[in-house]
Amino acid sequence: MKVVITGGTGFIGQRLGEALLQRGSLTAPDGGEASIDELLLFDMVAPSLRPAWADERVEIRAGDISDASQVSALIDRDDISVFHLASVVSGGGEKDFDLALRVNLTGGLNVFEACRARSGLPRVVFASSIAVFGGAGMAPVVGDHAKQTPQTTYGATKAICELLVNDYTRKGFFDGRSARLPTVIVRPGKPNAAASSFVSGLFREPLNGETCRIPVSEDTVMPVLGYRSIVGGFIALHEAEGAALGDDRAVSLPSFTVTVRDMIDALHRVAKDRNLGEIVFEPDPFIQAICEGWPKDASYERATRLGLPRDASLEAIVENYIEDYL
Amino acid sequence: MKVVITGGTGFIGQRLGEALLQRGSLTAPDGGEASIDELLLFDMVAPSLRPAWADERVEIRAGDISDASQVSALIDRDDISVFHLASVVSGGGEKDFDLALRVNLTGGLNVFEACRARSGLPRVVFASSIAVFGGAGMAPVVGDHAKQTPQTTYGATKAICELLVNDYTRKGFFDGRSARLPTVIVRPGKPNAAASSFVSGLFREPLNGETCRIPVSEDTVMPVLGYRSIVGGFIALHEAEGAALGDDRAVSLPSFTVTVRDMIDALHRVAKDRNLGEIVFEPDPFIQAICEGWPKDASYERATRLGLPRDASLEAIVENYIEDYL
Repeated sequence: MKVVITGGTGFIGQRLGEALLQRGSLTAPDGGEASIDELLLFDMVAPSLRPAWADERVEIRAGDISDASQVSALIDRDDISVFHLASVVSGGGEKDFDLALRVNLTGGLNVFEACRARSGLPRVVFASSIAVFGGAGMAPVVGDHAKQTPQTTYGATKAICELLVNDYTRKGFFDGRSARLPTVIVRPGKPNAAASSFVSGLFREPLNGETCRIPVSEDTVMPVLGYRSIVGGFIALHEAEGAALGDDRAVSLPSFTVTVRDMIDALHRVAKDRNLGEIVFEPDPFIQAICEGWPKDASYERATRLGLPRDASLEAIVENYIEDYL
Repeated sequence: MKVVITGGTGFIGQRLGEALLQRGSLTAPDGGEASIDELLLFDMVAPSLRPAWADERVEIRAGDISDASQVSALIDRDDISVFHLASVVSGGGEKDFDLALRVNLTGGLNVFEACRARSGLPRVVFASSIAVFGGAGMAPVVGDHAKQTPQTTYGATKAICELLVNDYTRKGFFDGRSARLPTVIVRPGKPNAAASSFVSGLFREPLNGETCRIPVSEDTVMPVLGYRSIVGGFIALHEAEGAALGDDRAVSLPSFTVTVRDMIDALHRVAKDRNLGEIVFEPDPFIQAICEGWPKDASYERATRLGLPRDASLEAIVENYIEDYL
């Protein structure tokens, strides 16, 4: 079978691709286990270097997710699964509303229509976000049954795509599943336009001996999860029985609800023998406002029931990052 | 000021238009009360007869809501308000998914973008529906804070437009408000493609001495509201202070939760001296399934707080219909 990952050359896209090749197979549209003979990473730009893990099964293609013909050309087999990760991120979406709608809404529709056009019933895993929650009426703990009143365009488009995944699935157009991601830590490389980018920087920069600037207060709270569990969650959600999901195909991934201070403390506990760069608080009202709109606590009963993975601890997430990237 | 009603030649659109002309003024984008000098009813077809209530302020225009240029041509003044009622209905949306997306989603986006393009901050009242609720996880009583897991494409597109109205408002593109309608009774004229069409037929056909065929069981439950309160609710929601709505602009209109049997009983109490046509139960699994997916009970705390109207009783709704149409 073929697997398409949109946003496939990003951090999570690549980790997912590598994990899928190692795994070697997935449940195919016919319900049987099929080996993956083609893995297509689609993204807006191709990386200058082909990833070391990418063997001959891997194709990397650059293009525009908002162009329906480009998207339908990706999804060109009936024995296919799609992980739809491509997205404008939260901070980027606040700065460019039109781009957020074009990439996240039109792009999503293009992926969903291309899957609908196949004669099988492809499994589609959509990367949603806990940014679907927010606003004055938000519950103190947001779980799978909380109302979605997002306070960013990013969150709004994610909520819209959750609704579309549910409806396309209900209509029998494909077999969709939405994974609602908390803040992912620890992203390697450079900061990105996500409002939560500093959360990875808080670990990454000090571990690289660099200064990290935190744009929010140290008591800022957020649910986080390590990238290994995010990737494991995508795959487990793909493999879950459709009946176990029922008519609401969206599942909040497990998470740890922590403060910025908790994360700094965990870093110091894990990396006490290293020469850490400095952490400096430099408030940015734009970022603080976005983060304050996010859930203060999250529950994840459905994910637990489905057996989706959760890291052992915050410290374990930092240890994994050191093992994988340092 | 100008007022545009999309879906303006439909039953509710016309009643709203007439009520607005009688009222004569609305709160304009500048915050002051302004008299209505132009009322544009936009719909997919123009009625063969100009409505008797339509004075020289009224223009009726036929067109396609999914055509952005036609929609932006409607919204051609800064001192404007828009009531966006145009929609594929529930049963119709289940039978033609693509049409539902084109009219309800693309059409909605066209209206929202046209309002955004004005230099004022037009008030936009969007007709949503309690069909946004549904599914296995639905709360026994759905209120303003219930999660939206619609089980029709109609409901899904209404939920999506609620999210868009919230986000366009949050961004300062217009001043949006969504009114979540229960089943509207009593619609005059002919049955339509709404799955709930029989609910009006249940009163209308017997009062006309005709046989009414009910496609669901007599214990089928649904929240209903009379058309006078629907129209009054639209106007009251338009006039509400934005601050009273906060960051969630959608409000469930008041309703009565009744069974088919309750409605038949109310008809007999009100019309005991009339020669009523027969009521026959002819189950239709397609309609029954849609109705079973709808809320069994609804609450409406926000509407009450905002002072939105609710008919005195089920009997009063029937009496109003007899007064207005018979």
